[in-house]
Amino acid sequence: MAVYTEVDDGELAAFIGRYDVGELTSYKGIAEGVENSNYLVHTTGGSFILTLYEKRVDPADLPFFLGLMHHLAAAGIPCPTPVATRDHKTLGTLAGRPAALITFLEGMWIRRPRTRHCAELGSALAAMHIAAANFEGTRHNALSRDAWRSLFEQCRAHADSVHAGLNAELDRELDALSVHWPRDLPTGVIHADLFPDNVFFLGDRLSGIIDFYFACTDAFAYDIAICLNAWCFEIDGSFNITKARALLSAYEAKRPLNEAEFDALPLLARGSAMRFLLTRLYDWVNTPGDALVKRKDPIEYLKKLRFHSSVASAKEYGLDR
Amino acid sequence: MAVYTEVDDGELAAFIGRYDVGELTSYKGIAEGVENSNYLVHTTGGSFILTLYEKRVDPADLPFFLGLMHHLAAAGIPCPTPVATRDHKTLGTLAGRPAALITFLEGMWIRRPRTRHCAELGSALAAMHIAAANFEGTRHNALSRDAWRSLFEQCRAHADSVHAGLNAELDRELDALSVHWPRDLPTGVIHADLFPDNVFFLGDRLSGIIDFYFACTDAFAYDIAICLNAWCFEIDGSFNITKARALLSAYEAKRPLNEAEFDALPLLARGSAMRFLLTRLYDWVNTPGDALVKRKDPIEYLKKLRFHSSVASAKEYGLDR
Repeated sequence: MAVYTEVDDGELAAFIGRYDVGELTSYKGIAEGVENSNYLVHTTGGSFILTLYEKRVDPADLPFFLGLMHHLAAAGIPCPTPVATRDHKTLGTLAGRPAALITFLEGMWIRRPRTRHCAELGSALAAMHIAAANFEGTRHNALSRDAWRSLFEQCRAHADSVHAGLNAELDRELDALSVHWPRDLPTGVIHADLFPDNVFFLGDRLSGIIDFYFACTDAFAYDIAICLNAWCFEIDGSFNITKARALLSAYEAKRPLNEAEFDALPLLARGSAMRFLLTRLYDWVNTPGDALVKRKDPIEYLKKLRFHSSVASAKEYGLDR
Repeated sequence: MAVYTEVDDGELAAFIGRYDVGELTSYKGIAEGVENSNYLVHTTGGSFILTLYEKRVDPADLPFFLGLMHHLAAAGIPCPTPVATRDHKTLGTLAGRPAALITFLEGMWIRRPRTRHCAELGSALAAMHIAAANFEGTRHNALSRDAWRSLFEQCRAHADSVHAGLNAELDRELDALSVHWPRDLPTGVIHADLFPDNVFFLGDRLSGIIDFYFACTDAFAYDIAICLNAWCFEIDGSFNITKARALLSAYEAKRPLNEAEFDALPLLARGSAMRFLLTRLYDWVNTPGDALVKRKDPIEYLKKLRFHSSVASAKEYGLDR
């Protein structure tokens, strides 16, 4: 949660001058996003987000991310879209970083999502998957099943000190996921990080989906599984089936799941729990406790992993079939 | 440079609902200010700054600060002004902190001020001093001459490790300032922290003065001395007499200095350099190098202190008398 790259007022005014957005009137570094530097920019033409891409983002991926946002916004998905300069470029350089000016979406992320928010999310997620279907770009999911084992090996030495018995449990789970991981599900571009802080609402209406910097090509149903984990558990760790039913029903109203997708949900949710458990564990053991970026608790995702491991059928997520 | 207190979307919507500013549409934690938590808030009525006062600010001082901003804004000084709720309150509570909603000023602070900016500053500073003259509030300057000795004593053990010979030099300087410190200068409410990052410009025109949280009752000319230090030295440590002349001339065009004020400028500038040297030194020896807040170099102000000690007359700041 910090601005990493400082931007000079004169340099920024010159950068903004390449766009048809009016005169620069203010810019404030905002404390959202841990990967990039973000500024909220006001011009006489409106509000924008200026993103400077920091070193954790591969510049080679930027045309994919920016192209995807443009494609989705053009298809009516409420997501930020890169603004083009007068000479039709959406990617520039500022303060030595790749940089893009992106439309600003009004809305707030919901700290404690309720059932109605989960329904809005499910509907928007389906619409996004449908809109993404004819997007030409592809990007390998660098945090998919084939990456988990090596991620785990980099944490193994510290895992048991974070939670007793974690090594053995993750070994068993990784073996099981490796054997049973579903194949041949409908695939396309997914968001892959659709946590509540990436979804804006105005009142109870979803007004924006942001932060496409984990977007990749993977099973659509895996995106749903990520959302089940991120939106349908309560603070105390209990699974809220009412929220899950709302999310899944709203999704299916726009894009019904086929039988294979439906049946795969518990395994996909288990895999999604593993993915966030492992990246959090990696950050936990590699980030000093007093660092700038707040560490997220990996054990929250161990509990979710265990829950999904105990689920016998996707019907337990609240859907009738 | 960080948001310290997180604000819940529901709590904030309720807080904003007490004001006549339209509906809340977004809020972003901004990475400016090290003392308080600041959010840039958009409503259907416009843009605002929401400030949550953190523990370094004494709540008993808040009515003075908010009252001063209101007074100055009403007198036409371009500064933020606290918005009142429907029941006429400018100070509330949010997330367990004293909190105020304040008008948002467009403008950018200038990273490398030029002469024309110094002239704008001098003119605005004089206007502010004139407008502050009939403000009823008073506040002791907690970082004035009588505080320097004890601040120094809290750093003494580490001072020589920061810079060889610093202890002896500061001892001598503090003694000299104690003997010669000017008295009976025209006094009123001063800003006391008018660095470039607290002054906004739109193009070359000054559009805002912000951050009144060091404002206090002291000699007007001391405020000028702070600005000479903050605006008129180059990166290489040299004093830019052209900038100083522009600042002082523009000030005097609105509020001429009397003879005592003019003569006192070198001593006031020395004292101002001492004040910022000491607070920076204190932070330097008391802040871990890897902390959230970036430390500022105290030695920059040692060089300024030495410069002013060598000045024989205020004429050396570029003014004819």
